[in-house]
Amino acid sequence: MSTNQESVNSDQYNVVLLAGGVGGAKLADGLAQILPSERLTVVVNTGDDFQHLGLKICPDLDTVMYMLAGVNNDETGWGRQNESWRTISEASRLGGPDWFKLGDLDLATHLVRSHLLGEGRTLTAVTRQLCRGFDIPVSILPMSDQPAPTTIESGDGIRPFQEWFVKERWQPAADKIHFPEDIKASPAVMSALQKADLVLIAPSNPFVSIDPILNVYPIKSMIMDLPMAVVAVSPIIGGQAVKGPAAKMMAEKGMPVTAAAVADYFGDLIDGFVYDQEDAGTLEGLDVAHLAVDSWMRDQADRVRLAKDVLAFASELANS
Amino acid sequence: MSTNQESVNSDQYNVVLLAGGVGGAKLADGLAQILPSERLTVVVNTGDDFQHLGLKICPDLDTVMYMLAGVNNDETGWGRQNESWRTISEASRLGGPDWFKLGDLDLATHLVRSHLLGEGRTLTAVTRQLCRGFDIPVSILPMSDQPAPTTIESGDGIRPFQEWFVKERWQPAADKIHFPEDIKASPAVMSALQKADLVLIAPSNPFVSIDPILNVYPIKSMIMDLPMAVVAVSPIIGGQAVKGPAAKMMAEKGMPVTAAAVADYFGDLIDGFVYDQEDAGTLEGLDVAHLAVDSWMRDQADRVRLAKDVLAFASELANS
Repeated sequence: MSTNQESVNSDQYNVVLLAGGVGGAKLADGLAQILPSERLTVVVNTGDDFQHLGLKICPDLDTVMYMLAGVNNDETGWGRQNESWRTISEASRLGGPDWFKLGDLDLATHLVRSHLLGEGRTLTAVTRQLCRGFDIPVSILPMSDQPAPTTIESGDGIRPFQEWFVKERWQPAADKIHFPEDIKASPAVMSALQKADLVLIAPSNPFVSIDPILNVYPIKSMIMDLPMAVVAVSPIIGGQAVKGPAAKMMAEKGMPVTAAAVADYFGDLIDGFVYDQEDAGTLEGLDVAHLAVDSWMRDQADRVRLAKDVLAFASELANS
Repeated sequence: MSTNQESVNSDQYNVVLLAGGVGGAKLADGLAQILPSERLTVVVNTGDDFQHLGLKICPDLDTVMYMLAGVNNDETGWGRQNESWRTISEASRLGGPDWFKLGDLDLATHLVRSHLLGEGRTLTAVTRQLCRGFDIPVSILPMSDQPAPTTIESGDGIRPFQEWFVKERWQPAADKIHFPEDIKASPAVMSALQKADLVLIAPSNPFVSIDPILNVYPIKSMIMDLPMAVVAVSPIIGGQAVKGPAAKMMAEKGMPVTAAAVADYFGDLIDGFVYDQEDAGTLEGLDVAHLAVDSWMRDQADRVRLAKDVLAFASELANS
């Protein structure tokens, strides 16, 4: 299928992006540059959230917020620009844990979030206030207001997600990924999905970024049942994950480490699949509409171009 | 009574100092300079403690720790030297409360404390670890491992202590001061008092720094019943509090704002009273042993001199 951006006015569509961290944040930024802000909702994985040093930390929400606020650190992919480390250095000197790097500016987010949650507000309301503080007009929503911690089972036991991901640098094989049961979507997520014309799945890790969102009731069934076009973007380019453990996890699961295997993994959840032209040819037999593009997002121009390609493709699917 | 430092070897006494914030920290520092560290225990008011921005903050413990570590800010009386304010400024910009000033270095203490408490350790154990981090050899003990929040009742309602003290700058009249019931001393405090030869009451606010400690069971009865010499140092000099609301609170209670009134307030709890020579003459009828000294503590030399005077006086009382 080829794209024809002129034939479709994607400004008229309500778009929901399911996003993890860096890949989700980048596509969210591309979409935010071209869609009216009221048309875009980013539903973010909170399976990575944890309590640390007394504070509530939501790594994926922060990565998306910092990117959309233009204060993110491009080099690390996490945290803020012009960051300093005075507090965490002193905390480490005093015997506190320092395996999770908390910069002085970043800490402010966690302090305000912890404060507002302590006042009894929902994570959705807290995130809205933080977004106001960062002048972000787009709606960024946690997948749920309930804590929904992902845990990773390896040969030597079960770890909270961040201990596996950051402390152990995702090296222990993730034999099994556990999501808590009975997690419910927030009213804001339900409402966004009910109004959605296009649902996009960001080039995030399918197993630990997207699956936790789909585990939240009834997000998956709404996406399956409602008359929306669903398009996923491959996190695998040329047999490698752009960032993080996706490729390693696919290999450990016995899956081929290919874009096509990601499309297969999503199965009939998706109506279309966008992948990198580097992988063109490997998806020929794929039983879902698919589009090869330049999907590397090195800078904002790349992010905008990918967002345009994906929107045009999804819009055509919605019209077909 | 006159002091004779040469006649008494106060190094042989186990000394417990009951302390609030600045005045307590200063006398603790003077004592720490002249006593073997294993002879000095500082029992600190934790009635001021509160949860703020998700963190557990113990203002009096921190003031004493920072002073004994030599990292305190002499000008403010609270917080650390060479402090910076990057995190709290950003938190304020994001809509967080900024009425309680939390510097970047100071925050490290609260993060580590909150982290260790979250692991289930007692405040006593946590304080011990922080003291190790600050290379403080003296034993600094919270008065209890239980939270024991002081609340202040004014005409317009009851406030948590810090909201009255910092947010309202102690301006509403403290009609009534409330301490929680059934607060028990930690084993470490009990043990220190059992071994104590001298108990010193720092020149701290009697109503909101010392009374909260005496409210912890069985601190007051141990001090009354055990064969130790108990000496208080006046927080009132020349009819004024050196710092804070003590004088204002005495006036509101209908007490004369004098050193003598403080001695009367402690009544038969104390065996001796140390006050400033500026107030000499006003204590002539006082029915307790008393000693006029230069009690202003402008610098460490002053703190050491006062500590020597108080120790010598208390030692004589213990021997008599």
